[in-house]
Amino acid sequence: MTVSNSVTSSVSNTLRRKVYDTLEAGRSETRLERFADLALMLLIAINVVAVILESVPSYHAAYGDVFLTIEIFSVAVFTVEYILRVWSVPEHPAVKYQPAIMGRIRYMLTPMALLDLIVILPFYLMFFVTVDLRVLRVLRLFRVFRLTRYSSAMGLLTQVLKEEAANISAALFVLMMLIVLAASVTFLAEHEVQPVAFGSIPAALWWAIITMTTIGYGDVVPMTVVGKTCGAIIGVISVGMVALPAGILASGFNEALHRRRRRFENFVEDAMLDGVIDSTEHIQIRSKSEELGISEGEAADIMKSTHERAQIRSGYCPHCGKLIRGTRDKRPKQPQPEQRSE
Amino acid sequence: MTVSNSVTSSVSNTLRRKVYDTLEAGRSETRLERFADLALMLLIAINVVAVILESVPSYHAAYGDVFLTIEIFSVAVFTVEYILRVWSVPEHPAVKYQPAIMGRIRYMLTPMALLDLIVILPFYLMFFVTVDLRVLRVLRLFRVFRLTRYSSAMGLLTQVLKEEAANISAALFVLMMLIVLAASVTFLAEHEVQPVAFGSIPAALWWAIITMTTIGYGDVVPMTVVGKTCGAIIGVISVGMVALPAGILASGFNEALHRRRRRFENFVEDAMLDGVIDSTEHIQIRSKSEELGISEGEAADIMKSTHERAQIRSGYCPHCGKLIRGTRDKRPKQPQPEQRSE
Amino acid sequence: MTVSNSVTSSVSNTLRRKVYDTLEAGRSETRLERFADLALMLLIAINVVAVILESVPSYHAAYGDVFLTIEIFSVAVFTVEYILRVWSVPEHPAVKYQPAIMGRIRYMLTPMALLDLIVILPFYLMFFVTVDLRVLRVLRLFRVFRLTRYSSAMGLLTQVLKEEAANISAALFVLMMLIVLAASVTFLAEHEVQPVAFGSIPAALWWAIITMTTIGYGDVVPMTVVGKTCGAIIGVISVGMVALPAGILASGFNEALHRRRRRFENFVEDAMLDGVIDSTEHIQIRSKSEELGISEGEAADIMKSTHERAQIRSGYCPHCGKLIRGTRDKRPKQPQPEQRSE
Amino acid sequence: MTVSNSVTSSVSNTLRRKVYDTLEAGRSETRLERFADLALMLLIAINVVAVILESVPSYHAAYGDVFLTIEIFSVAVFTVEYILRVWSVPEHPAVKYQPAIMGRIRYMLTPMALLDLIVILPFYLMFFVTVDLRVLRVLRLFRVFRLTRYSSAMGLLTQVLKEEAANISAALFVLMMLIVLAASVTFLAEHEVQPVAFGSIPAALWWAIITMTTIGYGDVVPMTVVGKTCGAIIGVISVGMVALPAGILASGFNEALHRRRRRFENFVEDAMLDGVIDSTEHIQIRSKSEELGISEGEAADIMKSTHERAQIRSGYCPHCGKLIRGTRDKRPKQPQPEQRSE
Repeated sequence: MTVSNSVTSSVSNTLRRKVYDTLEAGRSETRLERFADLALMLLIAINVVAVILESVPSYHAAYGDVFLTIEIFSVAVFTVEYILRVWSVPEHPAVKYQPAIMGRIRYMLTPMALLDLIVILPFYLMFFVTVDLRVLRVLRLFRVFRLTRYSSAMGLLTQVLKEEAANISAALFVLMMLIVLAASVTFLAEHEVQPVAFGSIPAALWWAIITMTTIGYGDVVPMTVVGKTCGAIIGVISVGMVALPAGILASGFNEALHRRRRRFENFVEDAMLDGVIDSTEHIQIRSKSEELGISEGEAADIMKSTHERAQIRSGYCPHCGKLIRGTRDKRPKQPQPEQRSE
Repeated sequence: MTVSNSVTSSVSNTLRRKVYDTLEAGRSETRLERFADLALMLLIAINVVAVILESVPSYHAAYGDVFLTIEIFSVAVFTVEYILRVWSVPEHPAVKYQPAIMGRIRYMLTPMALLDLIVILPFYLMFFVTVDLRVLRVLRLFRVFRLTRYSSAMGLLTQVLKEEAANISAALFVLMMLIVLAASVTFLAEHEVQPVAFGSIPAALWWAIITMTTIGYGDVVPMTVVGKTCGAIIGVISVGMVALPAGILASGFNEALHRRRRRFENFVEDAMLDGVIDSTEHIQIRSKSEELGISEGEAADIMKSTHERAQIRSGYCPHCGKLIRGTRDKRPKQPQPEQRSE
Repeated sequence: MTVSNSVTSSVSNTLRRKVYDTLEAGRSETRLERFADLALMLLIAINVVAVILESVPSYHAAYGDVFLTIEIFSVAVFTVEYILRVWSVPEHPAVKYQPAIMGRIRYMLTPMALLDLIVILPFYLMFFVTVDLRVLRVLRLFRVFRLTRYSSAMGLLTQVLKEEAANISAALFVLMMLIVLAASVTFLAEHEVQPVAFGSIPAALWWAIITMTTIGYGDVVPMTVVGKTCGAIIGVISVGMVALPAGILASGFNEALHRRRRRFENFVEDAMLDGVIDSTEHIQIRSKSEELGISEGEAADIMKSTHERAQIRSGYCPHCGKLIRGTRDKRPKQPQPEQRSE
Repeated sequence: MTVSNSVTSSVSNTLRRKVYDTLEAGRSETRLERFADLALMLLIAINVVAVILESVPSYHAAYGDVFLTIEIFSVAVFTVEYILRVWSVPEHPAVKYQPAIMGRIRYMLTPMALLDLIVILPFYLMFFVTVDLRVLRVLRLFRVFRLTRYSSAMGLLTQVLKEEAANISAALFVLMMLIVLAASVTFLAEHEVQPVAFGSIPAALWWAIITMTTIGYGDVVPMTVVGKTCGAIIGVISVGMVALPAGILASGFNEALHRRRRRFENFVEDAMLDGVIDSTEHIQIRSKSEELGISEGEAADIMKSTHERAQIRSGYCPHCGKLIRGTRDKRPKQPQPEQRSE
């Protein structure tokens, strides 16, 4: 991200650079960039609402052409945006997008770019294939995922989910195992009394999943004593199973935030080394806290705490045990010149 | 909060000061202040109970005039309270309430003051507009929010919710996205078999929300194999979705408490610098622990732990590696004067 | 707990001491004490099972006299135990149980002693009052609470619940507030369509509670569009409400365990001051880890970690920046004798 | 695990060693070992799917012989695997498996080996006993537990569950107690109105469990006012009860990860003692981070943070308070030789 490609510099690139900056989500600085962000977000929101409303038969009959107009306009905009993104991606600071052609192909294969393609493709496919239109229309709903680009808080969420992916998968695997076992045992107990709902293990799986996730529709309920006993045990286990991901995620968020805070503390401590925080350091601390996603109140708390600790630390002389806190006893430091002149 | 407005000092202000102190929730010191707090809390509780009971047709018929009396009395009290609050707000230490007139307007626009107004307004509106009275009566229930003013534990809750607002919003956004997608996919699978419950995406949203939140009424349940498979996948995902806010909040509480504890530890460590904690320091530590919301047991634990660490630390001389713990080997510190005179 | 009453020492007291030690739960050392613990636990378990089974009409008819025998025997044992406990309580190390008579009255008013009384009282009340026997029998189930006396892991649970009581109450209060508001709003939307289930706010409260706790029976479900919209919003909010206590408790457990671990770390660090952990220190560390409820694996981890840190710390001389790690560079410490002889 | 049994070294042992290494899950290094792992995992997965599908009557009728072939082949493979495992277990580095015969018996009694036996036994039992075949077939599903052998993320899960077992048991015990009390009280309130669903405490237990675990089928619902009030209270309590294990597990994961991270930090700090991290240390740090299950991003964060702290620490001279940061002010350290020669 920090390596800038200062090699390529032509007239076309100046325009490309501008297009790239305008389309890149998040760090909008100029008015145009902010406008592009907002306009695209609005268009996505309108599309999602349109797809939802179009599914209502009466609305579809009454406002079919409005929905079609929205659709055509959106696809046009998103197609232009997609092409511009692919064209301007060599401006991306990362080296892997560098040789213009190969970089564009590499970009087109990233999940986000594929999502962009999936979102516009259904429209063009309608001209070639004659599948159920409804299915294709719903595909457009995936546009909503693009909104995550514009939120910075989503970053922490994604980071934690990524870091805890292995643990959550392990928890999910245990959940699956228990669901299969629960379905099998209850199937044995119930399949004679309820030959439809518990007619086979796959049928019993529906009940087991709805129970283990504590949803509990009640459309299928065990009736035999053995089945109810199984259900009761599964119910108690489900409390623990639902708690597992909560525990893992809580720990993941804790870790991520702890590390961020620690790096901020180090930064603050460093700035306090000379005893005071001047205005330049204040600005640096503020931008650091924003970079690490630390709220203002938190930052203020950390600074207070660091300051207190710095005072304590400077008060100890761990070598000779004397109090050398100049800030507290306002006496001039005459008793200690020997230490300085040593 | 700490900046006091010592400029304005007249006879009217002395009364205004007294009114302000009496009405300000929380830090009640005199008997009158405590009585005002309790009386207002009781009146709010009575009002909430009255609104709930009034909705029962038989009670409404039998005790209609009792409820009306309560209503008139309450509105009278709350109106007087509201006017007194607006009048006395320039006594608030914050500068922004300072120029008396402008300060009062600024105060009237704070959420809490607006809530106070909403709570009394319905009564007066009844004389002018002829809307459904029931709706207006229920508005009075919002008075219950004012009770949060009197609880100090609500402070931590509010702080954590504020600090984690961005993360919780991100989690909610993901939840919404998944609900919309789940509703759409299941709508495709079920709308032919269940044309009412899954007749459109908005209709399917009801099922998707009740499933994703693990409520699971069971009034709408997928019936096709594809629909049940979607339901099962959504069910498993919902376990993770429900875990997200729990994880975020757990981490938020952890952070908030950690920071409070750390500041308390610094305070205790500071007090222990000279080796002993005298009675003045004991009182200071107690008041600090109350200020930071640290329980007695916790405070005792932290003090024990700090004491232990202080002993260890003082035992090391990180400079020369010798044990210089004066508290352990009771020898006078003669061997070390060279260090002092060096 | 540590103050021993060494004043009273007579023959009766020697017996009283023995009775006290035998009945005190938890720290059983002699065979008799362990046997008394086990026998009482077994008797409580038998009682709970008996009360549950007795409620089945067929069992009650067939084995009524067996249940009565169990009841009479249990009440006899529990009565004797209660009397012995009250008699022997002055042996308790706490000062407040000291003047024998007053101490016994004070003990009889503790929650645990009251529970013991409630558990035996119903039997004797049967001779005097002629209320429904079933209610009295179920009261005996409260005996199960006495089992918590014998579990040490319950200690941490109780500690966390106590420390987080204020925060959990605040969360519960918010939950209640939201339930009342949800019930009221949905009552307005639904009371005309469903005049029974949503006939009044108290009736709507049942639906609101079952929804907000994500139980979702489905016996009452909103039917109007406004009602369903309210229900959907309440459902999403409920995800956050259910997460609140999880977050608070997670943070509480974290705090409690962190403090325990920290005190253990201090203890280990202290024992490592001289570089080695001898066998006496090993035994002390083990008993400390048991006292603080730290598992063996955890204790081993902490010791490894402390050892590593000790090595690192001893390697730095923060004063002159020189490496003085004797354990790493096997050179004799000749370069530093000046420091020692200073 | 680290103690190698270098004593036994014969021709048979070389083969035995190879068999042992091939069968041992997880640390597959050679191609053969990886193939054996994958083949066994695949076979287990096929078996689980086969058992599930076989329960569908139509599939059982149509493909009965396919299922039988899979069964015979699997049992053959698992039998050979079991025998080879038992035979090669003396190669296990742990001393307890050492005297070949006794070691094998000890291994056969471990839970994992017993599970392996249970998984193949049903097939052989079919020849001797004539119980319901369905039950035996479902027993084969327990093979799925063996898949946990191959996942390293399962390690953390198991560790946390083990360490928190006491606390989770305490929480479960409280849950049970509350369920029994809830069932009893609601039984008293409802047994006259609903003589079937609430006919006895055991019958009421079904409702109480389904409610307390927030599953809420809705097949049994209290109808009296007292019963609904009980249900509402139980519902609110259930929110807390479901939160308890989440809180315990969150704290457990936190602890485990914290300890791992701390040991990694110590390791990094140690490597940074000399100011730079050379390539050997880089490899050591990488392997350490993998051993402790620390993700790459986390490791990078920790290293950054440690580096920052090291810089700060070296900047302080806690002895004389002077800034001696050699890395910052590039002045040679002439001003300090007096300290060295003191």
